[in-house]
Amino acid sequence: RLARLQQKEAVEFKEHLDNLNDGVIAIILTVMVLEVPLPSQAGVSYRNFMGSMFIFLVSFFVVANFWYDLNRMLLVLNRVSKKMIVNDFIFLAALSVIPMLTKWMMLEPSSLAVFDYGIAYFIANLMKLIISANAWEEFFNEVEGSPHMFSMRLGRRLLIVLIINAVLIFLAYVMPRWDLLAYLLLT
Amino acid sequence: RLARLQQKEAVEFKEHLDNLNDGVIAIILTVMVLEVPLPSQAGVSYRNFMGSMFIFLVSFFVVANFWYDLNRMLLVLNRVSKKMIVNDFIFLAALSVIPMLTKWMMLEPSSLAVFDYGIAYFIANLMKLIISANAWEEFFNEVEGSPHMFSMRLGRRLLIVLIINAVLIFLAYVMPRWDLLAYLLLT
Amino acid sequence: RLARLQQKEAVEFKEHLDNLNDGVIAIILTVMVLEVPLPSQAGVSYRNFMGSMFIFLVSFFVVANFWYDLNRMLLVLNRVSKKMIVNDFIFLAALSVIPMLTKWMMLEPSSLAVFDYGIAYFIANLMKLIISANAWEEFFNEVEGSPHMFSMRLGRRLLIVLIINAVLIFLAYVMPRWDLLAYLLLT
Amino acid sequence: RLARLQQKEAVEFKEHLDNLNDGVIAIILTVMVLEVPLPSQAGVSYRNFMGSMFIFLVSFFVVANFWYDLNRMLLVLNRVSKKMIVNDFIFLAALSVIPMLTKWMMLEPSSLAVFDYGIAYFIANLMKLIISANAWEEFFNEVEGSPHMFSMRLGRRLLIVLIINAVLIFLAYVMPRWDLLAYLLLT
Repeated sequence: RLARLQQKEAVEFKEHLDNLNDGVIAIILTVMVLEVPLPSQAGVSYRNFMGSMFIFLVSFFVVANFWYDLNRMLLVLNRVSKKMIVNDFIFLAALSVIPMLTKWMMLEPSSLAVFDYGIAYFIANLMKLIISANAWEEFFNEVEGSPHMFSMRLGRRLLIVLIINAVLIFLAYVMPRWDLLAYLLLT
Repeated sequence: RLARLQQKEAVEFKEHLDNLNDGVIAIILTVMVLEVPLPSQAGVSYRNFMGSMFIFLVSFFVVANFWYDLNRMLLVLNRVSKKMIVNDFIFLAALSVIPMLTKWMMLEPSSLAVFDYGIAYFIANLMKLIISANAWEEFFNEVEGSPHMFSMRLGRRLLIVLIINAVLIFLAYVMPRWDLLAYLLLT
Repeated sequence: RLARLQQKEAVEFKEHLDNLNDGVIAIILTVMVLEVPLPSQAGVSYRNFMGSMFIFLVSFFVVANFWYDLNRMLLVLNRVSKKMIVNDFIFLAALSVIPMLTKWMMLEPSSLAVFDYGIAYFIANLMKLIISANAWEEFFNEVEGSPHMFSMRLGRRLLIVLIINAVLIFLAYVMPRWDLLAYLLLT
Repeated sequence: RLARLQQKEAVEFKEHLDNLNDGVIAIILTVMVLEVPLPSQAGVSYRNFMGSMFIFLVSFFVVANFWYDLNRMLLVLNRVSKKMIVNDFIFLAALSVIPMLTKWMMLEPSSLAVFDYGIAYFIANLMKLIISANAWEEFFNEVEGSPHMFSMRLGRRLLIVLIINAVLIFLAYVMPRWDLLAYLLLT
């Protein structure tokens, strides 16, 4: 009986985690628009408004893209372990600060802003990779074997992500404006 | 196995997209009320309050109406393609700026405000039509054939929407106040 | 085929409406807490803070109570008509202004504030009754007959709600403070 | 028929309550980030920004942890009673003020702030225990018997939680800074 309960637990937690992910990302997507200042307010020109709008749209599609990737990864799973849930929460925490940092970065492309954005973006990407690795590992465990080749490919991808992000974070100190452009192109 | 996984993927993505749509639209609907100023604040008369309330209710039902239309269209589908997801995100982005632009337009019915509202409204309507076209196309693909006549009717509707919106956006320059009224009647 | 599609449409819309209801009410419940001022801010005493906290908790349980009633009513249904959706949206619109009006009423128990709260509260209750009536009507339609006695009981309840609310709204003009107390006891 | 309806009601309410829980907690998690001030604003140093960020992250994981515990407890149930729903709402109300109080406590570690946080934290923990007790009680009722030993263990745990919280709340008066540290370690 307890075994059956644990089975049920793992399956239902998957569903709840999916709901929470969708909910958190829906809020991240939408709440950003509240911070766009209206041109009818004092000291806000139409140019500021358009800039804020552009920041909103960039953040919107960055987060939407993460939503797509996350859901693709979690799709292969039928259940979810505690480790996965913790990883997912770290991912959501990193994701929820991205809009705020995007805004800061665009308002004032200083080294510090681009650097912080780089860190958050890096953590979100790292967690995405780890969740992806966990997901595929469990997927292959459920069936048969030899996910060896797969794990090597993953390791290579992890390395590439690490290097690109290290370079970008370093660049933030030297030339923040060009680095900002690189981030925009990348997303 | 991989084919089965892809099948499952397309079906489950539909569910997630539905959840995200419902979540984003629920937030758009509710978060607007936070921006209504209370009459107990300094410099806010009861008349301002009633005006804000009216703007809130108009935006509420405009967005609620889009929710109804979107759900009707997505209902015919059992799965969802990547193209559909991207279109849906553009739709959501346009939808989430509508409350903000409604507010601006009502506070200050200038050409610029009505023009921007026109653009957002037009994009939302355009994406709605495109999603509708995709949905019906896929629906007929799943069964048998000859969606030819149907696609012609759709093309005609697309043309009508394009023309009406072009006229309304043009009018925004000439007489913003009347144009605002036209938008209110239309929704 | 089209008949089957319409059947599916009515059933799935029920699910989407439930999701939207839960989402909107979850946001109304939570977003209120953002407006409570912290005592560390200038000009906010601990007494103000406790007052705001009390307002938050009252609104929280008023809205939670509406959530409970709404879900009980919609539970008897398997599908949902367009009329029901429109009624539900009016209900949600009235519900989403209640926290704001609660805040105003508590900050400044003037006639106007209590009067407006009375109107919103009345609309929410009225829509609740109408949705309830629709739901039971459809429920009895699905099975067999003679919902006559039932509809009479409902009519009586409608009359009672109308009278109580009319009296309370009228009292708002004469003695707002006592009326506010009556609302608090009622919820 | 009515018996079948009540059966269905209890099962569906469980689902709705789960949705509402996930929704409310998703919003609590995400909305906190909006209150982090950007360093580009006047009078906000990078140090303030990092402090706010740290508060955000602590609150995020405290709430995420409550989410995990709540879902684990509700998982054993297939249906839900009215008492459970009321308890759940009190839990959500306590949970939704925690982020705000965390912020206050960190900005200004006064006796009052730590004391209030202690109260909210205590109520959330208490409700968690009560919901847990209810859930296991119902779970054992559904099957066979003798949850006696279990209820004793629960009583002991309840006592421990009560004592720890009483001590912590008392400490808030004597040495708020050390007490704050104790809370951080505990979560």
